[in-house]
Amino acid sequence: MMRTRPLKVALLGCGVVGSEVARIMTTHADDLAARIGAPVELAGIAVRRPDRVREGVPAELVTTDATALVKRGDIDVVVEVIGGIEPARTLITTAFEHGASVVSANKALVAQDGAALHAAAEEQGADLYYEAAVAGAIPLVRPLRESLVGDKVNRVLGIVNGTTNFILDRMDSSGAGYSEALDEATALGYAEADPTADVEGFDAAAKAAILAGIAFHTRVRLDDVHREGLTEVTAADIASAKRMGCTVKLLAICERAADGLSVTARVHPAMIPLSHPLASVREAYNAVFVEADAAGQLMFYGPGAGGSPTASAVLGDLVAACRNKLNGGRGPGESAYTRLPVGPMGEVVTRYHISLDVADKPGVLAQVATVFAEHGVSIDTVRQTGKDGHGAATGVSADGGGGASLVVVTHRASDAALSATVETLRQLDTVRGVASIMRVEGE
Amino acid sequence: MMRTRPLKVALLGCGVVGSEVARIMTTHADDLAARIGAPVELAGIAVRRPDRVREGVPAELVTTDATALVKRGDIDVVVEVIGGIEPARTLITTAFEHGASVVSANKALVAQDGAALHAAAEEQGADLYYEAAVAGAIPLVRPLRESLVGDKVNRVLGIVNGTTNFILDRMDSSGAGYSEALDEATALGYAEADPTADVEGFDAAAKAAILAGIAFHTRVRLDDVHREGLTEVTAADIASAKRMGCTVKLLAICERAADGLSVTARVHPAMIPLSHPLASVREAYNAVFVEADAAGQLMFYGPGAGGSPTASAVLGDLVAACRNKLNGGRGPGESAYTRLPVGPMGEVVTRYHISLDVADKPGVLAQVATVFAEHGVSIDTVRQTGKDGHGAATGVSADGGGGASLVVVTHRASDAALSATVETLRQLDTVRGVASIMRVEGE
Repeated sequence: MMRTRPLKVALLGCGVVGSEVARIMTTHADDLAARIGAPVELAGIAVRRPDRVREGVPAELVTTDATALVKRGDIDVVVEVIGGIEPARTLITTAFEHGASVVSANKALVAQDGAALHAAAEEQGADLYYEAAVAGAIPLVRPLRESLVGDKVNRVLGIVNGTTNFILDRMDSSGAGYSEALDEATALGYAEADPTADVEGFDAAAKAAILAGIAFHTRVRLDDVHREGLTEVTAADIASAKRMGCTVKLLAICERAADGLSVTARVHPAMIPLSHPLASVREAYNAVFVEADAAGQLMFYGPGAGGSPTASAVLGDLVAACRNKLNGGRGPGESAYTRLPVGPMGEVVTRYHISLDVADKPGVLAQVATVFAEHGVSIDTVRQTGKDGHGAATGVSADGGGGASLVVVTHRASDAALSATVETLRQLDTVRGVASIMRVEGE
Repeated sequence: MMRTRPLKVALLGCGVVGSEVARIMTTHADDLAARIGAPVELAGIAVRRPDRVREGVPAELVTTDATALVKRGDIDVVVEVIGGIEPARTLITTAFEHGASVVSANKALVAQDGAALHAAAEEQGADLYYEAAVAGAIPLVRPLRESLVGDKVNRVLGIVNGTTNFILDRMDSSGAGYSEALDEATALGYAEADPTADVEGFDAAAKAAILAGIAFHTRVRLDDVHREGLTEVTAADIASAKRMGCTVKLLAICERAADGLSVTARVHPAMIPLSHPLASVREAYNAVFVEADAAGQLMFYGPGAGGSPTASAVLGDLVAACRNKLNGGRGPGESAYTRLPVGPMGEVVTRYHISLDVADKPGVLAQVATVFAEHGVSIDTVRQTGKDGHGAATGVSADGGGGASLVVVTHRASDAALSATVETLRQLDTVRGVASIMRVEGE
């Protein structure tokens, strides 16, 4: 039954992921052929630095001319693992124009230009797959695009960046500060020399945009995602979370609004209860919850990055693209028919943990509570502590000039209401500063 | 772009799952049409008892003649949610003969006759999908068949039966015995009036056969799966597990042998450490670990049964089958090319927790330890307890005629070696009985 002409694959990029893709394609060639129904052949590998020896990568296939490779005309599937916007975007578009399907691991590009790429694929009757762009080896794009396509997804919530999870895990387990934990992550290879994309939440935001778009069948661009990194998370925040029976995670949260008329997507640090399954996601692992009308609550867990896991996702997509080339089928295209607008952060409703530096004198709590009430933000719990670490008295302090810390946890409120509350609090004479504001999720 | 002739769907069975499928197809018709690219229409619903009123199910579509329905010739996709072997098997085969693709939630049938059903589908160029047959709404069949198709899966380990997990969870949390916990499960609707299929492990074994076949690209039949139910799990076993920092779960475990030349599939109760993520899977939830060469360790978690979750899985498959009808593609067929044989239970290597009733007199431990050593089974830990609950002395008991309990936990050993060990132990005068043997997994 197996045809003999092999399917030809061009590999763009041969770094940590690409070299692993090449290795598996070579060592598992027989398995891949059996699973696809035809042999699959690595026809060329485009790299920037051909002099770098890559173990197990056939040297005769290496070229620096990626454009010529994707223009060859005999390539069935192009695998793009370069990353970044250009030249990846132009190469992918050129690949479609020359009849190839594309498998990409490029979250930044898919998040920014997914709609245009899908349109280019559609025009040529080609496939665009990108499981590897989100959460490494964890099947998430395919389950959302295909398994849950008959359901109504209301929420996607998870840890989608391994670097920041490693840092927060270290801060939580050792009491280390952010800088110290980042240094450890860098030393162990979990953080890049320039960690901006991870620690400022850009990487997670790109994934949130992709997941929200698929989950809600609408277009969500990177710019639509509210983004806060973890550089301002302090050891004191982690300690405060612990006192509440919580831990701090950098979460990506995509939600359908209660009225169903809009969606939101955001990335920020948040406290979650230790009893929540995401609380026990350690080191650089990823985990994502999906809540759907009929399916209920699902969780997907696994390694969110790394050469081998990402290569696993790429190869799954490669087999799908090859099978379609062989059988004439088509992978799912862009599904954005709901045209649901992406709402502003102010519309997001959640709980908040606010830490205030206040004067340790009578009436402060009453003043603060009044401000919350005036903005319609209901308080769940309040905890006061003197600067010396002892509990401060609620307005019965012996030292009227001293400082104290006041921690307020609210009930659910809109981000807009909370922001207005904090704005007013800052103007109180008795509030010396807002030490931190953190959302509380997963309850 | 959307064609106007609707795709026609025949629904076989309208119980808990079927009625939910019909309801969602009606209420979400517009969404399904947008996602498929053509409207999808419920063309007929075959039931045994047409007089039973089903809310939201169009009465004019109901028929008792399932055979006539699948023979109509204008049906694009048949959804089979009857369960059991016949008449489901004949109806599905007839559906293929009349050009339809089939979506089934029937684990027993797929486990028993999957190869023949796949062949029948293949012959007609039709699709056979069955995500709902394993672990309800949790995407597991598609991730294994498609997402991980470029990887090498070595192990699938999980909780795939909600009824038994509910029972074990109750036994663990309340100290209840098996019968009491089963009664509670029955009262709450988690167990059927005849719970045999669940508590004897038949349901989990069918799922294990399906998962092993997909994971290892070979044929695994229901009869190939070693099966032990949980009816003999006692409150004492659960208590003993707790003392070890473990809990007891009914696990389905599919493994590639260390030499890669065979696979095994088994279902049995096992102790797992409380630190293992499966230990915290509560009530009727399911969770499955998949270990693959490149991907590493993945986990999938969610509701493993129930009308809505199962309907979610059915609808995902229905959209896929409809899209293929529309675009000319094909879902994955049977992949059994590795032809790996299924090894006997004796080849399985794991750890064991053995509880012995022994005479409380000098030399017993030495005797028992000698038997283990003679069979090449290495002991990890031993714990002795007097019948009165106090610690028994290792051969220095004041009461040479009394009874004691001896708990042995082994290192990894083959099931054959362990069985031979236990056989010899039973022949010792000092061993009055083997109270329980339980495997220890997930370490």
